[in-house]
Amino acid sequence: MVNFKTIAITSNTNKKNVLDIAKQCCEVLYGKSQAILVTENLSEISKNKKIKVSSNKQIIDKADLLICIGGDGTMLGSARKFGFYGLPMLGINLGNVGFLTDIALETITSSISEVMQGKFLKDRRSFLEASIGMKKSYIALNEVVIHSGALAQLIEYELFVNDTFVYRQRADGIIVSSPTGSTAYSLSGGGPILHPDVKAITLLPMFPHSLSSSPLLVNDVSKIKIKIIDGAGRPKLSLDSHDSLVLKKGDEVAIKKAKAELTLLHPLSHDFYSACRNKLGWSSALFNK
Amino acid sequence: MVNFKTIAITSNTNKKNVLDIAKQCCEVLYGKSQAILVTENLSEISKNKKIKVSSNKQIIDKADLLICIGGDGTMLGSARKFGFYGLPMLGINLGNVGFLTDIALETITSSISEVMQGKFLKDRRSFLEASIGMKKSYIALNEVVIHSGALAQLIEYELFVNDTFVYRQRADGIIVSSPTGSTAYSLSGGGPILHPDVKAITLLPMFPHSLSSSPLLVNDVSKIKIKIIDGAGRPKLSLDSHDSLVLKKGDEVAIKKAKAELTLLHPLSHDFYSACRNKLGWSSALFNK
Amino acid sequence: MVNFKTIAITSNTNKKNVLDIAKQCCEVLYGKSQAILVTENLSEISKNKKIKVSSNKQIIDKADLLICIGGDGTMLGSARKFGFYGLPMLGINLGNVGFLTDIALETITSSISEVMQGKFLKDRRSFLEASIGMKKSYIALNEVVIHSGALAQLIEYELFVNDTFVYRQRADGIIVSSPTGSTAYSLSGGGPILHPDVKAITLLPMFPHSLSSSPLLVNDVSKIKIKIIDGAGRPKLSLDSHDSLVLKKGDEVAIKKAKAELTLLHPLSHDFYSACRNKLGWSSALFNK
Amino acid sequence: MVNFKTIAITSNTNKKNVLDIAKQCCEVLYGKSQAILVTENLSEISKNKKIKVSSNKQIIDKADLLICIGGDGTMLGSARKFGFYGLPMLGINLGNVGFLTDIALETITSSISEVMQGKFLKDRRSFLEASIGMKKSYIALNEVVIHSGALAQLIEYELFVNDTFVYRQRADGIIVSSPTGSTAYSLSGGGPILHPDVKAITLLPMFPHSLSSSPLLVNDVSKIKIKIIDGAGRPKLSLDSHDSLVLKKGDEVAIKKAKAELTLLHPLSHDFYSACRNKLGWSSALFNK
Repeated sequence: MVNFKTIAITSNTNKKNVLDIAKQCCEVLYGKSQAILVTENLSEISKNKKIKVSSNKQIIDKADLLICIGGDGTMLGSARKFGFYGLPMLGINLGNVGFLTDIALETITSSISEVMQGKFLKDRRSFLEASIGMKKSYIALNEVVIHSGALAQLIEYELFVNDTFVYRQRADGIIVSSPTGSTAYSLSGGGPILHPDVKAITLLPMFPHSLSSSPLLVNDVSKIKIKIIDGAGRPKLSLDSHDSLVLKKGDEVAIKKAKAELTLLHPLSHDFYSACRNKLGWSSALFNK
Repeated sequence: MVNFKTIAITSNTNKKNVLDIAKQCCEVLYGKSQAILVTENLSEISKNKKIKVSSNKQIIDKADLLICIGGDGTMLGSARKFGFYGLPMLGINLGNVGFLTDIALETITSSISEVMQGKFLKDRRSFLEASIGMKKSYIALNEVVIHSGALAQLIEYELFVNDTFVYRQRADGIIVSSPTGSTAYSLSGGGPILHPDVKAITLLPMFPHSLSSSPLLVNDVSKIKIKIIDGAGRPKLSLDSHDSLVLKKGDEVAIKKAKAELTLLHPLSHDFYSACRNKLGWSSALFNK
Repeated sequence: MVNFKTIAITSNTNKKNVLDIAKQCCEVLYGKSQAILVTENLSEISKNKKIKVSSNKQIIDKADLLICIGGDGTMLGSARKFGFYGLPMLGINLGNVGFLTDIALETITSSISEVMQGKFLKDRRSFLEASIGMKKSYIALNEVVIHSGALAQLIEYELFVNDTFVYRQRADGIIVSSPTGSTAYSLSGGGPILHPDVKAITLLPMFPHSLSSSPLLVNDVSKIKIKIIDGAGRPKLSLDSHDSLVLKKGDEVAIKKAKAELTLLHPLSHDFYSACRNKLGWSSALFNK
Repeated sequence: MVNFKTIAITSNTNKKNVLDIAKQCCEVLYGKSQAILVTENLSEISKNKKIKVSSNKQIIDKADLLICIGGDGTMLGSARKFGFYGLPMLGINLGNVGFLTDIALETITSSISEVMQGKFLKDRRSFLEASIGMKKSYIALNEVVIHSGALAQLIEYELFVNDTFVYRQRADGIIVSSPTGSTAYSLSGGGPILHPDVKAITLLPMFPHSLSSSPLLVNDVSKIKIKIIDGAGRPKLSLDSHDSLVLKKGDEVAIKKAKAELTLLHPLSHDFYSACRNKLGWSSALFNK
């Protein structure tokens, strides 16, 4: 039986209703948890004794669950900062229901109550881990992108999977996406949608100068290596469209599934395909009948 | 240690050099195997005592290995007829090296010799199994297609995965493809390429009347169900673009991975990505440098 | 100054409100036109003396304007039957506003009144004309499709534009689309959207077995020729997904813009891009902001 | 009858054989033209009295024909520098035959001789002209791109055609392409191929956050306006992937066909579709027969 003693709450948006929603979460949690921690930017609600402003490290060390208030972008950031270190996460959506944040404002009280009673689904997601040479590694939940760094400028790279040569290509860049990322940037570029439990990594060239530009899917235990053959400008490595590192000719970027996993909690009513229908217009007909 | 005592040879093409190639295979096998069986259409080469014309059933019962002479189409047919029943297969390509048939004419002698010595790679492929209602099931190695049966005519269907509703769609049809099929019909329709060891099934609508038409990938243990909501013409179920069954309104087609697997043998030099480069033009640049 | 003396009304749907709408149109027309003709299937409303059931030929000969009640499919059929012979057409939409039928039920009275006063936009659309050998020619407003006639079966054909060889291709078929057809079947297959005044014909292979499958656009005065090189099954020629002719190996299908044009009338508020936004979800965002 | 009195030669590559090829051109021209002008970077070959190193302005003023040695990129640059001012251009290809440069090294002598005798095809190409506010305008032969200026970062913009609102979109950017550009960057992004005589402009969103992302084609006399609604980073305007201007929120970029046209000369054997077959793999089959 799950027992969430210490609950943390975070948000990274500055929408005005965030504080009210955080307070509403706290109301539900009083009596059900022993302690509530909040990140610095929610310090305003910490007048109540049971609520303590805490550092990220304190939250990772002490909390049993992290409630994220925001959209899929908030979840993405929190996943790298907290979820990567083992903290399960629950997402409350400020706007339309998202792929990661599936508790709507109207159901906060009932949904959190149910989760506190152990009624939830566990959803494990893989992170991607990228490293350049022997140096430290970087984490992405959605995708790692290697890009020329400039508009309509090319890089030339070689792709290897498990040390086997795949192709040499000239393109604006390449998107390496986890199943979670399949409904994000990769989708805009024509990539397939992967149910979260498909164990695969999607490799999608961006504006490739080649005849064949189909996305390639490899097993998620594959070791991917991208070698920068030519990048006249300033090629870049980007993680979840967020952090960005400069690459140079000859760099070898290694990408693989990270050992750590993200644990998302969902209400029992959670349904991946329902989120797809909502967000991807699967129910909208193109022509009149 | 593998020991191929009885080797069968088959082909389904009528290209004139097939008999010569079959004879060449036999030359290599004399002394290395105890018996050689050939399918009816190769009966002309059975004058030699060691070679016996055999029925499909006899081959399945007695042979330890099946050598297929032809192209990927020959392999596809043999996979359903022999490979499905556990007989490992080795493909000799009459034309360009294919995805399934990777022994070129020039290397027949050396490649078969090596295989007989146990030097080969084993490559397991899933079959898809389709059934309508409670009736018998049908097998495909590449893809199951459900289609309106006529040009530019629509069917309306509902897709379920593990009994969860995914979408209702009007389209010319839908392609349900195994990883092996990802380089076949699905690819022509814009589907992704899956390395053979990715455990997923690709669902690709054909000319869909919807705003979003991305391929959807689900785990290969998923139970897929497609319910025919409307099909004014004569909707059809097709298996590897070969067998074809008529469907009617209300029919529910269940598709899942079959229990039986195909075992392909490859020379040690086999490389999936090399086949992709050859066949998909991965090495061809679109523009001059 | 336009003067619509004789107005015809037609519909090809059997939705129950069609008769009521036809009557509503007549109410508006009494006093504004000298005569009202209706097609056979609207005969029920002809009890009024001013309304005469007429044959298609009578309508073509006598009417100055045809009001079509239905959806884009109704317009398509009426365009080939009436519009091709010079009769201007006005479309009333029974369902959602379409690309061709842009008068909504709520504005029938005001829109028809305005059109009768000469307040309308004229929109000329090209027909495509297809012929096989020297035989008679066939008309399509949206697209001519040449297809293998069967599911996942190939035809092989050669494409010529103005007698210059373009390519030889193996595919399920090829769509030859007018600008009007660019928002119909061609769009489902990944073709571009053409504003109606772009003078071009779109050539779009269906499930092609080639590395490059981009749609090709040629000037709309081009003479297109498609030669059936191989079609094991029963290749077919289809016109607006409607009429269908059987083709055989060696047949040469010639396709060009027809001399006759369709004249569509629109309310002054008509806007092609607004129809696109409505029908193609141009206003729908894929992700949350 | 054409009479090329003064011929200019240019190149912008530093491949070592350029000077030899330029000399070979001169050999053919001696006696056939009255004067030969070369751009500064070819000054080494000007020892011969008949050859004069000239400024761009002198070449524009005096030359009747410009011979460009290089690839499509060289032609692109020369088109903006010389062709835009009315100087007809002839392209000699250093590598594979391109879309713009169609004289191969082996046929330089015969091809130039024929052109000097008036045996050539004239091929008019449109330029696109972009301007921001009332300021000066910029020229592109292939495409104008408006882009977020950074990897996987969004701009939000509104598109207007002839002052009619088309859509508001969030995307990495948008490609506005001429028919000439349809075989360049636009093609890598999934745009259609336009025969050079199709009078249309292609509008292609880059990684759009919308359900529908089909390319839109408008008549080439359309006035296109793109208004930057939001661009947190540094949105940019790029011309032929070359010049690049910084944009800011609120900027309105106006794009239209320029009045000036490029005149390309081709050998009589020139064939657009043959170039497509060569460069786009139209002749390569995806699967074995």
